[in-house]
Amino acid sequence: MRDVSIIGIGQTPVSEHWDKSLRHLAADAVLAAVQDAGIGRVDALYVGNMLSGEIAGQEHLGPLIADFCGFRGVEAFKIEAACASGAAAVHVGYVAVAGGLADVVVVVGVEKMTDEAGAVVTGSLALAADGDYEVPHGLSLVAINALLMQRYMYEYGLRHEDFANFAIVAHQNAINNPNARFHSALTLERFSSAPTIAEPIGLMDASPIVDGAAAIVLCPTEQARGFTPSVRILASTVVTDCLSLHDRQSLLRLEAAEYSARKAYRQAGVELKDIDFFEYHDAFTIMAALSLEACGFAEPGKGTLLARDGEIALDGRIPVATMGGLKGRGHPVGATGVYQVVEATQQLRGHCGENQLPQPRLGMTQNIGGSGATVATHILEASE
Amino acid sequence: MRDVSIIGIGQTPVSEHWDKSLRHLAADAVLAAVQDAGIGRVDALYVGNMLSGEIAGQEHLGPLIADFCGFRGVEAFKIEAACASGAAAVHVGYVAVAGGLADVVVVVGVEKMTDEAGAVVTGSLALAADGDYEVPHGLSLVAINALLMQRYMYEYGLRHEDFANFAIVAHQNAINNPNARFHSALTLERFSSAPTIAEPIGLMDASPIVDGAAAIVLCPTEQARGFTPSVRILASTVVTDCLSLHDRQSLLRLEAAEYSARKAYRQAGVELKDIDFFEYHDAFTIMAALSLEACGFAEPGKGTLLARDGEIALDGRIPVATMGGLKGRGHPVGATGVYQVVEATQQLRGHCGENQLPQPRLGMTQNIGGSGATVATHILEASE
Repeated sequence: MRDVSIIGIGQTPVSEHWDKSLRHLAADAVLAAVQDAGIGRVDALYVGNMLSGEIAGQEHLGPLIADFCGFRGVEAFKIEAACASGAAAVHVGYVAVAGGLADVVVVVGVEKMTDEAGAVVTGSLALAADGDYEVPHGLSLVAINALLMQRYMYEYGLRHEDFANFAIVAHQNAINNPNARFHSALTLERFSSAPTIAEPIGLMDASPIVDGAAAIVLCPTEQARGFTPSVRILASTVVTDCLSLHDRQSLLRLEAAEYSARKAYRQAGVELKDIDFFEYHDAFTIMAALSLEACGFAEPGKGTLLARDGEIALDGRIPVATMGGLKGRGHPVGATGVYQVVEATQQLRGHCGENQLPQPRLGMTQNIGGSGATVATHILEASE
Repeated sequence: MRDVSIIGIGQTPVSEHWDKSLRHLAADAVLAAVQDAGIGRVDALYVGNMLSGEIAGQEHLGPLIADFCGFRGVEAFKIEAACASGAAAVHVGYVAVAGGLADVVVVVGVEKMTDEAGAVVTGSLALAADGDYEVPHGLSLVAINALLMQRYMYEYGLRHEDFANFAIVAHQNAINNPNARFHSALTLERFSSAPTIAEPIGLMDASPIVDGAAAIVLCPTEQARGFTPSVRILASTVVTDCLSLHDRQSLLRLEAAEYSARKAYRQAGVELKDIDFFEYHDAFTIMAALSLEACGFAEPGKGTLLARDGEIALDGRIPVATMGGLKGRGHPVGATGVYQVVEATQQLRGHCGENQLPQPRLGMTQNIGGSGATVATHILEASE
């Protein structure tokens, strides 16, 4: 198997793109990544997307986007894994290059969510949950996360305010990211007084519904030497769990996140302590806590302490969501996993401006689908 | 790269499965394939499906099906490429095994279409066409194929009856396939008198809307020697074209089918004349003709002559749809590409009963999405 590097990245602002169709949005990211890499040929294009059929009235995104970007003919299809679709598509690209089946691969994550009313989007997002055993009882993804958060607070004796710093740090980091949805600082007061969506989840616990596209260009590391600065993918793992909460071994352990991270550490040959920053899946503040615990950054029940003690800030022990995360940058679901990889690459290249960490060597991303049923983890390394 | 073999196959009858949920249907095929292979461990499960979100109210099929089959935790996600989703998923499985990223991979194609009214299904299938430039004008997939067929008949001076034998042969071959949707012979009279759906396409030109699931188990050929009879995958290609007809170089040439087949011949190191039978994508009779021409079995405009002269029958020069094809076995869209590979494997194993070809060595399958925008071709070889 060959080592795989990222030689180009591209992204659109995360926003409400009512003036652009799905293909335009995707092409903006793809062409930016291709230009960044400075390549003229592409062997394959993989699309991470969840809801194009339901919201944009369009499936069959592979050829649609490939053709619109000028790559008519290349191998192309869509990968769907709910909110982890983006990172699952990155994984498919990684496998094709690592295995020697393709030399230059573009992966694009794209989602347009704001063309539809909120109720339609909430209903569509629930397609990630168990449609036979959860959704018919009225459980949306927000409701599922609310159940998790209630139980977590009960088990560990926590208050809603204990989760505030996840959102506050995300908003803080988003301020200097020109592509982020929000550029406003968040106060504890505003966090606490935000309207409740599903008890105990408030509006400021939740990532926003947005449009966006992000893309990367992959090639074998041995062919990436001419491309500076390239970033190496040391690990790419996808692990699954059951969809429904009631079937899980434990409500408060994200087993797939745990195994996905462990497998990634092993594949990369690194240890937890080697990771310099973590682009995590803070779709809700409870997911932020559970993801930190699953990956080993905190003991079970101690995730919120990392936030409270400032350990997740840019100058903390394990900086997270360094460009705003899902809460601050936004969560265009099928694109999110690619945004995470793009932002980690920006950090490892030293291109994060005000948010730049001091010479990070290893960055980790974790993309979660359906409250933990699909978890894709990537570990990236700065080139020498 | 490693050689890849098929060591297990499974399928459900193609029918109206109102008594089974999507996960049940998929599991029936997966567990049959796993039992056929006699394996106990699976590294990954890839799902080919197009319409689960629109019709079954369920996305996120990867973990849903993996968990339900007893493979909780394995890498799993859905691949979507319209009606070519099944073969695209086979390709993803092939790449993972060939590249050395996984040793035992299950690929399942599943589609449940009959739970919804016909109009909903027709509208959902149109998600494979261009949602900005084709569908708003009222073009469904049937209408698109009707335009192609009209032009084809005009260019080559053909009558509707010239297409009859594609459907007649498919129905004939389906009679002895216990998993086929139809078990009745079709006469020229019945073909010609069938109601018109979209001029000139009649009901008997079109494959039926059905439910079904099919699965295969893949592993490296060097590990397949214990599994008899295994079948080797000599080529696996996915090629794309633009979605919309008006953007094509030529209306009557399926360029993606042409390039996909040529690439497959090259990859397999075989020539057209070596192919013993062809599981083609006869979603409509016009697609049967165009696919035969694209692959080189007939000159442009001469596809129907193959049918007229009996060359596509089981005892003809190039037998097609040997177990009934899309017209006779049925076309559960995201599952069809896997059914084709399963049936080709049955032929190469010598397990086709009344429909068995005399010792075929090479079989080809071609799965087409969206009137030619995605084409996946596979060439399979009987084990020694």
